[in-house]
Amino acid sequence: MTIKNTIKQNNLQHLLKKASFGIEKEGLRTEMNGQLALSLHPEGFGSRNHHPYIQTDFSESQLELVTPPRESIEEQYQWLRALHDVVNRTIDEDEFIWPFSMPNRLPDEKDIPIINVSDQSEIEYREQLAFKYGKKKQMISGVHFNFSLSEEFVEALKADRMMSPEEVTDFCNGLYLTMSRHYLRYQWLLTYLFGASPVNDETYDSDIAGRYYRSIRNSPLGYHNTFSNKVSYQTVEQYVEDIESLVADRTLIEEREYYGAARLRGKGKAVRNLISKGTRYVEFRSFDLNPFDSMGFSYQQSVFTHLFLLTMIWMETEHSEEDIKWGAVMNKETSMENPFSPSQYKEEGLSLLSQMSAVASELEMDEIYHEVIKEAERLLNNPEETLAARIVSELEKGKSHVELGIELGRKYKEKSFEKPFLLDGFNQMEMSTQLLLFDALKLGVETSVIDFNDQFLEFKYNNIIEYVRNGNMTSKDTYISHWIMANKTVTKKLLKRSGFKVPGGEEFTSADKAIDSYGQFKEKAIVIKPKSTNYGIGISIFKKPASFEGYSEAVRLAFQEDEQILVEDYIEGTEYRFFVINGKVEAVLLRQPANVIGNGQDTIKKLISEKNQHPYRGVKHRAPLEKIKMGEIEQLMLKEQGYSFDSVLEKGKQVFLRENSNISTGGDSIDMTDEMHESYKQVAVAMAKALEVNVTGLDLIVPDIKIPSTDNEPGYVVIEANFNPAMHMHAFVQKGKGRNLSEKVINMLYPSIELS
Amino acid sequence: MTIKNTIKQNNLQHLLKKASFGIEKEGLRTEMNGQLALSLHPEGFGSRNHHPYIQTDFSESQLELVTPPRESIEEQYQWLRALHDVVNRTIDEDEFIWPFSMPNRLPDEKDIPIINVSDQSEIEYREQLAFKYGKKKQMISGVHFNFSLSEEFVEALKADRMMSPEEVTDFCNGLYLTMSRHYLRYQWLLTYLFGASPVNDETYDSDIAGRYYRSIRNSPLGYHNTFSNKVSYQTVEQYVEDIESLVADRTLIEEREYYGAARLRGKGKAVRNLISKGTRYVEFRSFDLNPFDSMGFSYQQSVFTHLFLLTMIWMETEHSEEDIKWGAVMNKETSMENPFSPSQYKEEGLSLLSQMSAVASELEMDEIYHEVIKEAERLLNNPEETLAARIVSELEKGKSHVELGIELGRKYKEKSFEKPFLLDGFNQMEMSTQLLLFDALKLGVETSVIDFNDQFLEFKYNNIIEYVRNGNMTSKDTYISHWIMANKTVTKKLLKRSGFKVPGGEEFTSADKAIDSYGQFKEKAIVIKPKSTNYGIGISIFKKPASFEGYSEAVRLAFQEDEQILVEDYIEGTEYRFFVINGKVEAVLLRQPANVIGNGQDTIKKLISEKNQHPYRGVKHRAPLEKIKMGEIEQLMLKEQGYSFDSVLEKGKQVFLRENSNISTGGDSIDMTDEMHESYKQVAVAMAKALEVNVTGLDLIVPDIKIPSTDNEPGYVVIEANFNPAMHMHAFVQKGKGRNLSEKVINMLYPSIELS
Repeated sequence: MTIKNTIKQNNLQHLLKKASFGIEKEGLRTEMNGQLALSLHPEGFGSRNHHPYIQTDFSESQLELVTPPRESIEEQYQWLRALHDVVNRTIDEDEFIWPFSMPNRLPDEKDIPIINVSDQSEIEYREQLAFKYGKKKQMISGVHFNFSLSEEFVEALKADRMMSPEEVTDFCNGLYLTMSRHYLRYQWLLTYLFGASPVNDETYDSDIAGRYYRSIRNSPLGYHNTFSNKVSYQTVEQYVEDIESLVADRTLIEEREYYGAARLRGKGKAVRNLISKGTRYVEFRSFDLNPFDSMGFSYQQSVFTHLFLLTMIWMETEHSEEDIKWGAVMNKETSMENPFSPSQYKEEGLSLLSQMSAVASELEMDEIYHEVIKEAERLLNNPEETLAARIVSELEKGKSHVELGIELGRKYKEKSFEKPFLLDGFNQMEMSTQLLLFDALKLGVETSVIDFNDQFLEFKYNNIIEYVRNGNMTSKDTYISHWIMANKTVTKKLLKRSGFKVPGGEEFTSADKAIDSYGQFKEKAIVIKPKSTNYGIGISIFKKPASFEGYSEAVRLAFQEDEQILVEDYIEGTEYRFFVINGKVEAVLLRQPANVIGNGQDTIKKLISEKNQHPYRGVKHRAPLEKIKMGEIEQLMLKEQGYSFDSVLEKGKQVFLRENSNISTGGDSIDMTDEMHESYKQVAVAMAKALEVNVTGLDLIVPDIKIPSTDNEPGYVVIEANFNPAMHMHAFVQKGKGRNLSEKVINMLYPSIELS
Repeated sequence: MTIKNTIKQNNLQHLLKKASFGIEKEGLRTEMNGQLALSLHPEGFGSRNHHPYIQTDFSESQLELVTPPRESIEEQYQWLRALHDVVNRTIDEDEFIWPFSMPNRLPDEKDIPIINVSDQSEIEYREQLAFKYGKKKQMISGVHFNFSLSEEFVEALKADRMMSPEEVTDFCNGLYLTMSRHYLRYQWLLTYLFGASPVNDETYDSDIAGRYYRSIRNSPLGYHNTFSNKVSYQTVEQYVEDIESLVADRTLIEEREYYGAARLRGKGKAVRNLISKGTRYVEFRSFDLNPFDSMGFSYQQSVFTHLFLLTMIWMETEHSEEDIKWGAVMNKETSMENPFSPSQYKEEGLSLLSQMSAVASELEMDEIYHEVIKEAERLLNNPEETLAARIVSELEKGKSHVELGIELGRKYKEKSFEKPFLLDGFNQMEMSTQLLLFDALKLGVETSVIDFNDQFLEFKYNNIIEYVRNGNMTSKDTYISHWIMANKTVTKKLLKRSGFKVPGGEEFTSADKAIDSYGQFKEKAIVIKPKSTNYGIGISIFKKPASFEGYSEAVRLAFQEDEQILVEDYIEGTEYRFFVINGKVEAVLLRQPANVIGNGQDTIKKLISEKNQHPYRGVKHRAPLEKIKMGEIEQLMLKEQGYSFDSVLEKGKQVFLRENSNISTGGDSIDMTDEMHESYKQVAVAMAKALEVNVTGLDLIVPDIKIPSTDNEPGYVVIEANFNPAMHMHAFVQKGKGRNLSEKVINMLYPSIELS
């Protein structure tokens, strides 16, 4: 029975559609002038030894970005986008990633640095490659597309004892081989559509200058084994034996030197494992870097490739060894065609596209799968629209390969800095989680987003699994510590008992009781607040003793928000947020109400508008700071001070537009970590210890941060202990130094990771 | 300046009103026939060595219930009520607590057992007391009322450097002494009002039979030192020196033998510490057990005593040593008066009550303080309404002292069994928390209710503090484990990856996507449910494959409840709740939908009404089981089966009134802990381990609980892992053996506590 029929008869089409996808993308680190960067692999990426996402290939300067296998093209792209942000923001500020497959300006052969790792065998292998192919050829970069059947598909084959475990392995190996054979036969179409290495810089090979290719990389001038066609894809046994023979007769240095356009990958390093343990995935290696996409391979290219591969599985025609060798020839021919000429296999191409269209319909694929086929048809009919042709068109406007590479590469790097507080691909997640994800990917912690909407991450490092929710909820805090901090009365009782200074006050469960107790508060400055709200709603502040009427009204207001209220002493002074993690204060933040400072020329309206231009200011919590609004409250606040939005403010005069200092109403964030006297930090650390909590944001009122806190003159009052404190507001501040707290979370979870 | 003036000038009245209150209440364990119980102190109470609440006094049979100091009379009574429930439910089922101060039927002097503790010096001290006073006299029981100034009051004295720490100690000592002097002068009024030992059993002392007292216990025939008036209350130094002299000249065996009606208690055992470290509280010892109150001292008596003590502080008249001695004489005279005769000091009493009334007004006390004064006035005018007179009236109806004691004592014990799943005093808390509180008090874990409405408890044992919320949220689980279980998708992913059997299925974030995926579910039995609800809302079950319309409608319904939904395989079988704690399955519960079983005679309506009589059934989560309703749903369900509420059901026929098995809709709970095959329990334990959680309720569907689970034939599917699982539904079941899980929580927190 054909593979297609087995799948259809068992109604497994929807499980076939699901699959795991991965991308490996190489790229050269490049200096601003287009020269190959000769610097070492950036320390920011932590240890290369077990970095799952950011590796080096042949050369120290050749980065390899590896997405983990993900179950949809969407997810594959989340990761590819994120890794590009991580890499662009972490490499040296004077470097960028080269956008072409053909190298940047290379130094002399001898000066191209081989990877600088401690494992001597890795270096020796590359020295042998350098000797065999030349270092320059190794610098050609590309994209590998990895495809794996979904776990559910494999599970379903086992269901109801349909197949034995051995039969499942054989069936899957058969499927992967069928797909590979058809791929090898039809790969020319991918080279026609996606080939993007029409030229190279003269430092690479001056001989081929003067003519254009579709893909130098796929051509005999590119980097691939000439012995590829010595490996059979008819059975997995033969595939394994052929590769082993090539190593045995020293054609290949090691098995991994086999660079077929389709490589079967199994468990462990030895290719022989494929027979007993099965194929894990197939690596398809034909793809040039697409310089017009900031990631080198567009989302549409991935979608097309996915459908292409499904068609290769669905196809019932069988291809002989000869057909496959013919496919290799077609691909070479295509790669050497002039980008502006039509494909010599156009008719086969159109026919293949219509097969793909039929598969897309039969498998009920999304609309985008039909769109990419139409686009491919357009390219078959209009060769000048192909990537290779578009590159040539750009060059013919007068730019050199190097100049165009610099222009595009720098643009993509700058794009990663537009919103440095967001992580592309994951920018719909909560900001603190994005920061944590960034650091995890950077430092090489194996990461899964277990639940995107719930901000739920899984980390794995040195085989230790840790889960994190909302950026800093972890196993390092206890279940109960959360609830201690969630309850203001409990927090206060615990802190007070441990000897810390808390505001005096009382909790009430009925308005009558609270109002009856007016007597005990009638001579004090007080705050009346609902017990459980955090956003200032229902809070009344009496900086001077309240009248009975004012007090009673405030009590009623607070009871509208909660069934319990607190009446507390009002404490004069400035409030600071102490971020404590793992027994240390890692950041102290001062939040100031929305304000502008005059320059003697501009109106308040203009000053606000200019302040709002700051890249850290956004709306609705999508940026570390919120834009200042020009609403009724701000207008009223100005009026009370004798201003309007049209007033011109004298130079140096600061005017506040809000009473409350919340960031969410346009407040400023000012880092005070270094300014705060050490003694207060010690107090904050001791508080966290008393609450038995590892991560907390403590709000302290400190009238003078220069006067040390002592037992007799504490100099502070603690207002609140917050669980799951925000981290992004410390990382990107209006004034002062940003503090990377997400990195500290990773360090708390994995103390063995060294932070740079 | 007088104490009153200092307080008023500093506006501390409201802080004086607040105070700490404690009650110590003695009571004899008694056999059902009224004889003194000669059994050992119940093992259920754990170790007497450090039990803060349940102690023994002189005799092994003499229980002493000690409430911790609490900040209001309300709280004092929460604890007193709770301790009575704990004691009544824990002592032997053939024993009860004697309700009178004068003993039950005593054996011969030699057969009265002295406490059976390991500390030999404690036994020797009691042997000396027995020699000096006779054992029988030691068996007289009473109530001590402890009073302590509030911490805030003491703090306020220090505020703004008003007083130095030494001045504060002196001021408080002065206040406590003033209060004690006035108390000793006026204690006769308390004896008049609350005296409740008019007679005794002949086994106590046959000589005094034939006449009635107000309080034998307060009389010279009762138990108190004849040398009480040798101790001065003028200064703390004199008080200390006088007691030390009494020990030095061997009048007292030890300092603690000093039984003045007002005893100053400080830090440490030595009375001398009072001078340097100050008085912690004063113990007032005049009170007879009130046999008409199930706790031996009514709430109103406590309120009256509180106001009486405040008046003793507020009083400006100074009393000389002679006055105080005169007070002792007045008290003795009062104690020996006939209960039906007016007090010879009635006028002084009425005058004192009007002073108390003035204090209540000045300090703005609640209405009940005025009510208890009116009641006291009534008693002064109507001696036949006093406790002593009411006892005599009962006896004159023909009952003996022993018979009346048996009647009342047994009634109070039975009261504690009316709702064994609630803890009196705390019965507005969540049921699982009440069970936990019960066990903590029983086992002698020092307990504070930190937040009543938030179900927040603090435990202390062997100086280790632990917090518990909602019965089993503790420090023994991690912050993140809660969130893992709170997210059904995350739970499922983790369990699946660890190799456990979970239902197949998929999560959707849009109705369109879910509806587009109909194809993959169209041939299966499925459940469609919102991701985050737990109560069955928005869930659709298709036991046979759904039509496209049915599927689409169910998807829409689920999306009305949440932004994410799950479509899962429906698994046939019975669902069991496995309660896992600390690596062990401690209970397995089967929940059955509301049902009745016919007897061939009664209508369904009658059967329901009878089933609803079960003491475990209540309404609105105030009982472990909910009453079965006779609403539209039940009516419809019956109709579908061909019945109405008026149908007479054949014998043995079980009819279900609901589809769902929730306890909250009248379902039954059936304990299956011993019936469930061990292999499933091992699976549940392994699941908890995989989720890294110490306390969880796992819902497994097991078609046949007798067939062992194996790797190849798991025999179960896990549906859900619940955090903070309910404990009460396992403790009180419709059928089978109740399981005490709260005790396991305590054992998890404090492994050194041995459970009996």
